[in-house]
Formats: sequence, C-alpha cells, structure tokens
Amino acid sequence: MYFDDLPKGYKFETGTRTLSEDDIVAFARQWDPQFFHTDPEAAKASPFGGLIASGFHSLLTAFNLTLEANVWNEASMGSPGMENLRWIRPVRPGDTLRVRIEVTSSTPSRSRNDRGRTGFQNTVLNQDDEVVMTFHSVVILARRP
Amino acid sequence: MYFDDLPKGYKFETGTRTLSEDDIVAFARQWDPQFFHTDPEAAKASPFGGLIASGFHSLLTAFNLTLEANVWNEASMGSPGMENLRWIRPVRPGDTLRVRIEVTSSTPSRSRNDRGRTGFQNTVLNQDDEVVMTFHSVVILARRP
Repeated sequence: MYFDDLPKGYKFETGTRTLSEDDIVAFARQWDPQFFHTDPEAAKASPFGGLIASGFHSLLTAFNLTLEANVWNEASMGSPGMENLRWIRPVRPGDTLRVRIEVTSSTPSRSRNDRGRTGFQNTVLNQDDEVVMTFHSVVILARRP
Repeated sequence: MYFDDLPKGYKFETGTRTLSEDDIVAFARQWDPQFFHTDPEAAKASPFGGLIASGFHSLLTAFNLTLEANVWNEASMGSPGMENLRWIRPVRPGDTLRVRIEVTSSTPSRSRNDRGRTGFQNTVLNQDDEVVMTFHSVVILARRP
C-alpha cells in the first residue's frame, strides 16, 4: 500500500507474538541488563514482583509485528520519529502481544510530490486485551506512482 | 547514584560504540528488515544512498551505553515512557555513537516517599559531533535511603 491508500482513520491489526522467559532474558542481557529483566529470582524483590520484559523488547516486538503485517513496507522511506511512548502495564513471561494501529494523519509533502508523512497511533495489547504500551509513530511513505 | 544525586541540570556523557556493517545488518534482520537496513547493495538505490542503521538500533545502542555509564542503575525502578524521539541524521557502517545526557526535571513522588521521577534529554552524537538522534526519557529512581 502507498501513502494514498492509508487515509486518516484507516485501521489494521497485526498478528501475535508470545514472549517466553528465555526471550525476555536474552533480549535484556544484550540491551537492557537491569535485574528485573534478566534474573527471574532476584526480580521477585523488585517493584514488579517478578521478571518483566524490557520496554524496548515490547517496542521492538510491536514494530516487528507491524512489518510482518506488511501494510506499508513497500512504500517506506524511513521515519523521522516517534512521540508519547508509554509503558503502561508490565509484560511478563508467556504474554502474547499484538498491535492495533490507526492512521492519525496523512500529509502530502509540500516540497516533494513523490511522498507524504503518515502518522500512526500504536496500541500494544496482551492476550487479555489489556493495553501494555502505546506510542505514536510517523513514517514517510511513497505516493502511488 | 540516587534520585537525590541527580538534580535538574546534572550532565553526563556515555562511552562510545562503533556500529559495523555486520552489526547493522544483524540487528535489522532480527527487528527491522527493511532493505535499506539489511542489503548494502540494494540500499544504494534507497533515499539514503547506502546502508543505514535501523533507528531502533541507534536507540538501543544509546540506552545500552547509558546503562554502561552506570549513573542511575542501582536506583532504577523502571520507566513510564519517552517523548520526542527524532531520527535526525542517518547512522552508517563504521559510525561511532555516544550520548550526552542532561537532567531536565527531578520530581519527588507525592504518593510514595521512597522514589521520584527524573527526566533526561538524550542527544546521540557521531564521531564528527553531529547529532544523529535525540529523545527525552523518564526514569523512576529510588531516593537515598
């Protein structure tokens, strides 16, 4: 799909992915080695009462699920940024994530007529339909040739 | 360091990390498999004129360098979110990143006297002192016992 195919209000949902304890620990050891992400025993004494996924693991999982949904991939020309990342609820071993996405803005470029900016509100849900994370992203998309 | 040791205006800088072409491609294959992050040849025809790192790779590298600096790790009680992520300049193979960090706010919790919220403005620089990315993060930090 191109910029022109994703007007404001367009919605889609991704597939799902389950994060195992091994997944959570492996990600955190590499990128976010805080004990409540890497040590299931020590994490029991943390404010979270047990192991939780790095918020960056949830973010990357959400983004990867979005690419797997293959909605705007062909038109992608990169992203200028994201806003309002909120880690709302802990993600624990065995939780299954998916993302609900809605187009919030669709703005043709004024200087380059081959592209536009598309804003997306991303809501990451777990298997109980609880919101675990939200963020707003912008992607530069090619216009339909 | 505890919440109380990081007042508004406190500054620190992280160590450095160089992202090789192999690093960039390996990260992107797992998390962000867009061709301008995974295929050095095909990327030449992209808007970027060559392979660039996933913006998430820059973000995770910046955060990991911050943990390595070990300023607030002991006091960390997790993060509620981030704001204003901006990918400003492409990160290319061989670029060396570091992060300049400044405390923007320091607010004791009103409901829990053992902790506070500390805001950080993060500026990610390359080896030529060019800004490649900026973001604002918040961390909940324990108060000095």
